[in-house]
Amino acid sequence: MSGNRDEFALIEWIRRRARISDRVPLGIGDDAAVVHFPRRADCLVAVDVLMEGVHFRSPPATPRDVGRKALAVNLSDIAAMAGRPLAAVVGVVLPRGRGDGFAEELHEGLRLLAEEFHVVLAGGDTNAWDGPLVLSVTVLGETTERGPVTRRGAQVGDWILATGTFGGSLAGKHLTFRPRVEEALELHALARLHALIDVSDGLAADVRHIAEESGVGVVLDAQAIPLSDAARECRDGRSPLEHALSDGEDFELLAAVAPEDAARLLAEWRFETPLTRIGEIVPAGTWALRDAAGGLAPLPGTGWRHTW
Amino acid sequence: MSGNRDEFALIEWIRRRARISDRVPLGIGDDAAVVHFPRRADCLVAVDVLMEGVHFRSPPATPRDVGRKALAVNLSDIAAMAGRPLAAVVGVVLPRGRGDGFAEELHEGLRLLAEEFHVVLAGGDTNAWDGPLVLSVTVLGETTERGPVTRRGAQVGDWILATGTFGGSLAGKHLTFRPRVEEALELHALARLHALIDVSDGLAADVRHIAEESGVGVVLDAQAIPLSDAARECRDGRSPLEHALSDGEDFELLAAVAPEDAARLLAEWRFETPLTRIGEIVPAGTWALRDAAGGLAPLPGTGWRHTW
Repeated sequence: MSGNRDEFALIEWIRRRARISDRVPLGIGDDAAVVHFPRRADCLVAVDVLMEGVHFRSPPATPRDVGRKALAVNLSDIAAMAGRPLAAVVGVVLPRGRGDGFAEELHEGLRLLAEEFHVVLAGGDTNAWDGPLVLSVTVLGETTERGPVTRRGAQVGDWILATGTFGGSLAGKHLTFRPRVEEALELHALARLHALIDVSDGLAADVRHIAEESGVGVVLDAQAIPLSDAARECRDGRSPLEHALSDGEDFELLAAVAPEDAARLLAEWRFETPLTRIGEIVPAGTWALRDAAGGLAPLPGTGWRHTW
Repeated sequence: MSGNRDEFALIEWIRRRARISDRVPLGIGDDAAVVHFPRRADCLVAVDVLMEGVHFRSPPATPRDVGRKALAVNLSDIAAMAGRPLAAVVGVVLPRGRGDGFAEELHEGLRLLAEEFHVVLAGGDTNAWDGPLVLSVTVLGETTERGPVTRRGAQVGDWILATGTFGGSLAGKHLTFRPRVEEALELHALARLHALIDVSDGLAADVRHIAEESGVGVVLDAQAIPLSDAARECRDGRSPLEHALSDGEDFELLAAVAPEDAARLLAEWRFETPLTRIGEIVPAGTWALRDAAGGLAPLPGTGWRHTW
């Protein structure tokens, strides 16, 4: 397809490619979508906005990358509650003049990841302007029978477990990461997780979110933090560890778990993505990095934040 | 408060003003919010994006107006399914340099309308850039025991009922309208509604949405369409009726109802907002405006649409 169409033609195109399910009996094309909860349930809801020029540049990010990422960051939020994603709705502001192929590729990025995770694209709002691309995705999920896992609930003595590796995400992973939905469900099924978060702001900042919400402190082991290849390859004068602590957008999970459960999780872990003990929960007031000799230093890295 | 803060400070400020409820046990401050469904239920979800320079200009729209409208259009979507709104999540892109008062007033517009409709502001994503304001609101609601009312289901012979008056919304109503949530619930409780929609694109365009989704035609009575004072006061060469048919953003309801039910609804109507019979559903292929003498003309007005 080529040329420029209007909003209704694009929605029709998307709608023809949409699927419904017994969980989403009414999808695109009405005033609201319907997500069915067959029994008493907790519905999880998360929203993330991606802005061209802030969260990505296109190029190098393709529209397909951007569509994928907009959904992936939300799936990561549902994973961070140990929930199952069900449906997504998409608010999009398209830049005029990039043609239909742009909008279609954006949608294709969303659709392919949605299918991978059995998520129904249930609705949206399509707009256009002479500004940059903005994509706002809201994901609905459900908790398992064990309920949601929040950021609060970490207890002194808990081990801190992390999936995957950290640092240097901007070199590529921030566009290609696979949200840790299955890993979170497995952790939650195997053990009682005290607290769970996904790393978007940065490892140090996000572990601090758990600590602050739980009213506890944290010690991370410098040597235990899994460094990504991208963190090792950064040549900007900052160490790989600094990158791992503060870069953000790793979209890995951090869990606080009682030691006996944590040891069992590490022993039984069956996923390709590694699971690593990176530190422990300590009494409130300590927020530290422990070196190989056991010395404690203040934990650096505040992650990335918007100011205005 | 004054000066510029960062994302986390603003979220903290919003969080302190947030409420939770038995339906939203977990709100702002975690990776996702939790909306509780105490029994088997259909969750309604709708999203709308408002963009500065496209949907409003600020000034004259105040940030409070804009926050209010962003929620109101979504509440109108839930009303259009005959549902009850429960919770909203807000994705916002703030223009840098307008200060904290701007963000706070925006939130105040959202919060006051949310409280009026017992909707919990359950979460969001806050961003900033050097561009215009973008506000993406997603509302979650629930259907009543009678289920949702969609756009499809209108039957030949149905009367078309409309709440309120039409035309000239840009003169002010597009910012101050009250979403017809209670009216929709009352209509749905009193009668079996065959189809329901809210008028955002324009009366003619939205009645056509019902007709197309239902596989039927429509005749509207020119003399029956309730004209707003704003439509009568427009001095641009177009008639008040033309404004009423095509302006859009009226956020009134259109319902297709069997004649006996419709007559009863009109007789028993107890709301201040008027309820009017404006036409009827006819076999597919007719999409017409009937004049006082009974003559039919093609129904004009396609409403407003985005192109790119």
